[in-house]
Amino acid sequence: MIKIVNDGNRMELHSPTALPHASSFLWNSKMMIHMNCRGYAVSQFMQPEPSKYAYAPNLEAKTFMQPEQPYFAHHPGRFFYIKNETTGRFFSAPYEPVREKVEHFVFSAGKSDIQWKIKHEGVDIIMQLSLPKDDVLEQWSFTIKNSCTEEKKLSIYPYFPVGYMSWMNQSGVYDDHLNAIICSSVTPYQKYKEYDKIKTLKDKTFFLASEKPNAWEISQFAFEGEGGLHNPDGIQQNFLSNGNATYETPACIMQYQLQLKPNESKTFQFLFGPAKDEKEIAAIKKRYFDKDGFSHIKNEYDQYIGEGKGCVHIKTPDKNFDNFVNHWLPRQVYYHGETNRLSTDPQTRNYLQDNMGMSYIKPETTRKTFITALSQQKESGAMPDGILIHKEAVLKYINQVPHTDHCVWLPICLKAYLNETNDYGLLNEKIPFENSSKKASVAEHLNLAMHWIYKNRDERGLNYIDQGDWCDPMNMVGPEGKGVSGWLTLATAYALTVWAEICENNNRKNDSIRFHNKAKEVNKAANEHLWDGEWYARGITDNNIPFGIKDDQEGRIFLNPQGWALLSGAADTNKADHLIKIIEEELETPFGVQMLAPAYTKMREDIGRVTQKYPGSAENGSIYNHAAAFYIFGLYKSGYRDKAYVLLRKMIAGPDQEDLVQRGQLPVFIPNYYRGAYKQFPKTAGRSSQLFNTGTAPWMYRCLLEGLLGLIGTKKGLKIDPQLPSHWHGIEVVRQFRGATFNITISRKPKIKVMTILVDGNQLQEPIISNIQKKTYQVEVLLPIDQSKSK
Amino acid sequence: MIKIVNDGNRMELHSPTALPHASSFLWNSKMMIHMNCRGYAVSQFMQPEPSKYAYAPNLEAKTFMQPEQPYFAHHPGRFFYIKNETTGRFFSAPYEPVREKVEHFVFSAGKSDIQWKIKHEGVDIIMQLSLPKDDVLEQWSFTIKNSCTEEKKLSIYPYFPVGYMSWMNQSGVYDDHLNAIICSSVTPYQKYKEYDKIKTLKDKTFFLASEKPNAWEISQFAFEGEGGLHNPDGIQQNFLSNGNATYETPACIMQYQLQLKPNESKTFQFLFGPAKDEKEIAAIKKRYFDKDGFSHIKNEYDQYIGEGKGCVHIKTPDKNFDNFVNHWLPRQVYYHGETNRLSTDPQTRNYLQDNMGMSYIKPETTRKTFITALSQQKESGAMPDGILIHKEAVLKYINQVPHTDHCVWLPICLKAYLNETNDYGLLNEKIPFENSSKKASVAEHLNLAMHWIYKNRDERGLNYIDQGDWCDPMNMVGPEGKGVSGWLTLATAYALTVWAEICENNNRKNDSIRFHNKAKEVNKAANEHLWDGEWYARGITDNNIPFGIKDDQEGRIFLNPQGWALLSGAADTNKADHLIKIIEEELETPFGVQMLAPAYTKMREDIGRVTQKYPGSAENGSIYNHAAAFYIFGLYKSGYRDKAYVLLRKMIAGPDQEDLVQRGQLPVFIPNYYRGAYKQFPKTAGRSSQLFNTGTAPWMYRCLLEGLLGLIGTKKGLKIDPQLPSHWHGIEVVRQFRGATFNITISRKPKIKVMTILVDGNQLQEPIISNIQKKTYQVEVLLPIDQSKSK
Repeated sequence: MIKIVNDGNRMELHSPTALPHASSFLWNSKMMIHMNCRGYAVSQFMQPEPSKYAYAPNLEAKTFMQPEQPYFAHHPGRFFYIKNETTGRFFSAPYEPVREKVEHFVFSAGKSDIQWKIKHEGVDIIMQLSLPKDDVLEQWSFTIKNSCTEEKKLSIYPYFPVGYMSWMNQSGVYDDHLNAIICSSVTPYQKYKEYDKIKTLKDKTFFLASEKPNAWEISQFAFEGEGGLHNPDGIQQNFLSNGNATYETPACIMQYQLQLKPNESKTFQFLFGPAKDEKEIAAIKKRYFDKDGFSHIKNEYDQYIGEGKGCVHIKTPDKNFDNFVNHWLPRQVYYHGETNRLSTDPQTRNYLQDNMGMSYIKPETTRKTFITALSQQKESGAMPDGILIHKEAVLKYINQVPHTDHCVWLPICLKAYLNETNDYGLLNEKIPFENSSKKASVAEHLNLAMHWIYKNRDERGLNYIDQGDWCDPMNMVGPEGKGVSGWLTLATAYALTVWAEICENNNRKNDSIRFHNKAKEVNKAANEHLWDGEWYARGITDNNIPFGIKDDQEGRIFLNPQGWALLSGAADTNKADHLIKIIEEELETPFGVQMLAPAYTKMREDIGRVTQKYPGSAENGSIYNHAAAFYIFGLYKSGYRDKAYVLLRKMIAGPDQEDLVQRGQLPVFIPNYYRGAYKQFPKTAGRSSQLFNTGTAPWMYRCLLEGLLGLIGTKKGLKIDPQLPSHWHGIEVVRQFRGATFNITISRKPKIKVMTILVDGNQLQEPIISNIQKKTYQVEVLLPIDQSKSK
Repeated sequence: MIKIVNDGNRMELHSPTALPHASSFLWNSKMMIHMNCRGYAVSQFMQPEPSKYAYAPNLEAKTFMQPEQPYFAHHPGRFFYIKNETTGRFFSAPYEPVREKVEHFVFSAGKSDIQWKIKHEGVDIIMQLSLPKDDVLEQWSFTIKNSCTEEKKLSIYPYFPVGYMSWMNQSGVYDDHLNAIICSSVTPYQKYKEYDKIKTLKDKTFFLASEKPNAWEISQFAFEGEGGLHNPDGIQQNFLSNGNATYETPACIMQYQLQLKPNESKTFQFLFGPAKDEKEIAAIKKRYFDKDGFSHIKNEYDQYIGEGKGCVHIKTPDKNFDNFVNHWLPRQVYYHGETNRLSTDPQTRNYLQDNMGMSYIKPETTRKTFITALSQQKESGAMPDGILIHKEAVLKYINQVPHTDHCVWLPICLKAYLNETNDYGLLNEKIPFENSSKKASVAEHLNLAMHWIYKNRDERGLNYIDQGDWCDPMNMVGPEGKGVSGWLTLATAYALTVWAEICENNNRKNDSIRFHNKAKEVNKAANEHLWDGEWYARGITDNNIPFGIKDDQEGRIFLNPQGWALLSGAADTNKADHLIKIIEEELETPFGVQMLAPAYTKMREDIGRVTQKYPGSAENGSIYNHAAAFYIFGLYKSGYRDKAYVLLRKMIAGPDQEDLVQRGQLPVFIPNYYRGAYKQFPKTAGRSSQLFNTGTAPWMYRCLLEGLLGLIGTKKGLKIDPQLPSHWHGIEVVRQFRGATFNITISRKPKIKVMTILVDGNQLQEPIISNIQKKTYQVEVLLPIDQSKSK
């Protein structure tokens, strides 16, 4: 059903119906398109806020990207009807809207393009979508070949619905000079001051064709007629009616009649996207359709995407795992770092974590991120709820709700960057505060942040939660200013510890001791007030009610406090062993580890919105991969390598057919969640959200590098501490690190008693490769068969 | 194609495809449903803001009701699939989603229900929708009869899609105890303070059945499957799968298998609507399905609708005109008065005009309206942009934009009320102001309003427009505080005149003289500064540029200033004759009179948003019936009876087939507009907006009473001044007025030289029936053949 091809560079799906929502996505710095295997698409571009150029058939709400996006017949998509002019029969590619079962179907996700290959009724079709590096538009090519022994007379109809653009003004005309359909609209508004903004928007949608069509239609209603999208009147006619859309829902539809000899093929190229005016469209036509513009720009994009390949390449006993790690994981990390989820005000924690991932791809981006974020820190040390990364940006949606956790991500994410780059110089950069002329070093900024989060605790020593922490919708635990977060308390302890370690590396011994002591103090408070005898509570409400404890009927146990107790060191070995067992019983499923259980089935007014989400979805007890990644990171930190690998592996859909079907997703990205509530709703457990915006990606990469592979950057150099699962006998790794390339083999050997490391044939005395030169190292790591007990 | 049946109480459409968007609507005080002939529906209810219980398939924006609502396969609707279990063949009623051309199709709009009658493949179907008077739910009955000579085995599947309820939480289950499908959701929100509001909302949608189904399905996706809505997997199966919706788009689908002998029939009843909880649903079940609940509540609703029958019944040479006037126009007037367009903050001008219409139906409602509106007047005399009619209401959307015309509607609408009721006592009622303990009589309130609007003029004597007047989107003429409205200046003159007349009737002679003088002054200013030699300009911008003048390329002439110059008396007879000729040339079309021409095709930044609307739609040069009604009222006021009738008649779609097809609407309501820009876009000119929210209805009724029929209430009694079009020889009228019934015949007689009125056989000396008793009068009005020259 799925197939890895092109040395792992492409993932193929051979059915349009087995995983009907399977998809891939492409992006550049200004846009994103999420393309479903059947032809449906969700696309947006920044101007500067996310905007559409292909709309729903009705007036859609502006909202963040939705999990489990519902598709329906008139959902935006990109389709081609293919009609045999001799028989009158037709079908559509890739699959929608006709849904005819074609003889051969391949949806092929590439890193810098998406393709379909279809064979049906004597024709071979290759459709390809790619993006340019800098422009906002889709590049489509459509090749059709006559695979019969007789000449064929065909009509090809691209059908790119534009949808309901605007109630104020929407229309579409065919521009004969440009070979383009140009749909125009006015972004709806009512207050006259908004005019200054809307008048700058790209309110046109164009469909530019490389060749003149024989006919065209722009009124969606006229095209569809009484036949319906599966059998449109327009296709039943000999020729489309050359009709405009005049305050009617527009669609870009062209008809090409062609005759193909046996084995003859024909390629069409199309561009689809938004524009300000006809002049811009004319310029695009020139740039893309003159000479080799089309393929030149495609190559540029390939190169851009190629730059996101990450710093490690692995070969392990699990080929499917390797494929994801080598190809798709760094791509997803790169996407986050490059686009900040197409937001102008990314949540502070997302901004920091997404860019933590860039430490492994483009660390200069990560560096800038810290400077941008810390320049918006308040002098008190508090961090804002979102980081404004565009001059017109304002805090929107969830960023208008006060959350208390943002500071903890600073040292945690910084550590990853420093590990990878050793750029301790960053700590001395002097940068400003929000609304202040004062400047301070990055180290000072971090000190202030750590003081702020340390101070923001109650008399018991537990961190206030206000209207949320990492868990956005946990909004009613602490609005009165009393409720505390168990997770955040443990995260504070961990952040203080990490910062203390950074201070030590940065030769600030006193700070280091000070922050280590504070961390211990916070851990102590956590153990005193949050441990319920079995696990750590998720928090204590404004009314002093602990929750996420064994006496609760719903939301008894939350994953995050346990995972972070491993990280912070609050849990000693006994507690850690116990927690892992408990989590296995209470939270693990065949699809990964749930964030809480049992999922809430009704509102708990002292916890909040999280309890109102559908049980097993999102933060209410799904397999929320971001939380799972924290836990896995904690497991590796504590040496539970077998458990860690099991859960790491479960983040990736497949390879079993049954698993793929249940998740409904291709393993080309990690979704923000798989449905959980496994015991409550087994029917849907495992189903992917299909949402590729998630803090999981950088953490998974970090788990891989610092956990599984144990190839960890330190002040001195590359520390080697692999944590292979017990059943692996050996792996090969190529690691790029500080300008050097390390070709590493790690293998278990019967005669080895303690880990032995050979670098270019020489045995290391301590497991760190230091004095790294810009060269290629050959590294052999030999492990004992029974390399310490796997916890 | 269309047929008037049941003594005009029903309008039938005999094709699902000839007028694909033809529709009717039902309402009660809490809800509204706009039902399309093919089965699509838009429904909403108040809690207190408009809410949905059947949603679009995606996250739809909250917005006001849209003109030319686009429909598409997955649009909300109410459908029944009918399967022949012997042959496996199926179709759907009324038409969507299968779109099988049935043998016989009738969509029948009633006043208090909507029916379909379908005959196809040996079965007769009658579907009926009605509403209860007080509850928020739809009452459906579905009757199927075997019209063959052999027994039939059938399955009936109601398919009521619920759509995308919420990204936070949506699901559906079957409740065996209630025979109901219950879909649950949580209205999405992010800020915790909103919880207090959302927790009170009716977030469930129920589908209650009178009998237990054989099977059911709630997952829309599972039901539709690969077959598509026109051929769903669920129908292809023997039985539906009894599947729930678990964070999946829900639909209410049941299957009833039945065997019908020849001529045997079977009726099902269903209820569909929102609820807070299961308890409420159980109570509804009991109330509707126990004993005769269903039909009892239907009768109650019939009676409620019956109360809105208006105060006049006519019989003229134009049967189709009569039908609309006798049956549908008062219904539309009543709808507006009863629901205030389902808004909690109706625009002040809409609130006043919509309730002006209630003068003819439930004048006590009109009285309350004035008191409510004037209690929100500022002490300065200014009126707010919207009237808050619910304790939780706030000014929203367009009501946040300052408009300057609201005061003028007070005397104008009041006059209609006083004409009808003679309730001059209202003028002495003491009522408060907004945010003030001060009270003043209604007359004082009106004085203040008239002073305010009189004062709100510039040094030339023209009324400031600020960010809009009656024309909401004319928002950039005067934002700097300098631009003026030509229309509003004339409207001010008219309002002052009307108020002066009321003052005179109210024995305030001095006020009357004062306001008459002011009116003259304003008219003088208008003639000095607005008359461009051919017609009155629409306004003068902040930069002192007049517009709506003969030198303009677009928007050369606007209807409103001309119509109101007739009303205000600014135009003398010469000017009036000239204007009417000009309007005929520039603005009249076969579908009515346009609001402006040529329609703007690009933004004019000194006029504003109106110029950005699509040319020929809405305020940008459509046949905007509200404006047309003003003009017609002006024509009657000035005695242009033939022209007035022609335009009045053109407001109503049909009866010619060609006209009906072009308008695409049944003559059961007047839409807010028909597409205009007749010379620019003839293809779409005449197309109905299908939007039945419009200030047209009360004005059309007033034109009818005070113009065409000339049966006008005055202080003394019923004044008789008919203005029949020249080609009518006689009409019959039954007029309810101040407790009396007048059976009136009006006829032209060769021997009559001046109008002669016989009341119960006695000739009147002046054309006023005074001293009206609560009885039935027989009135004969004899007109000369050539009753004065028809202008």
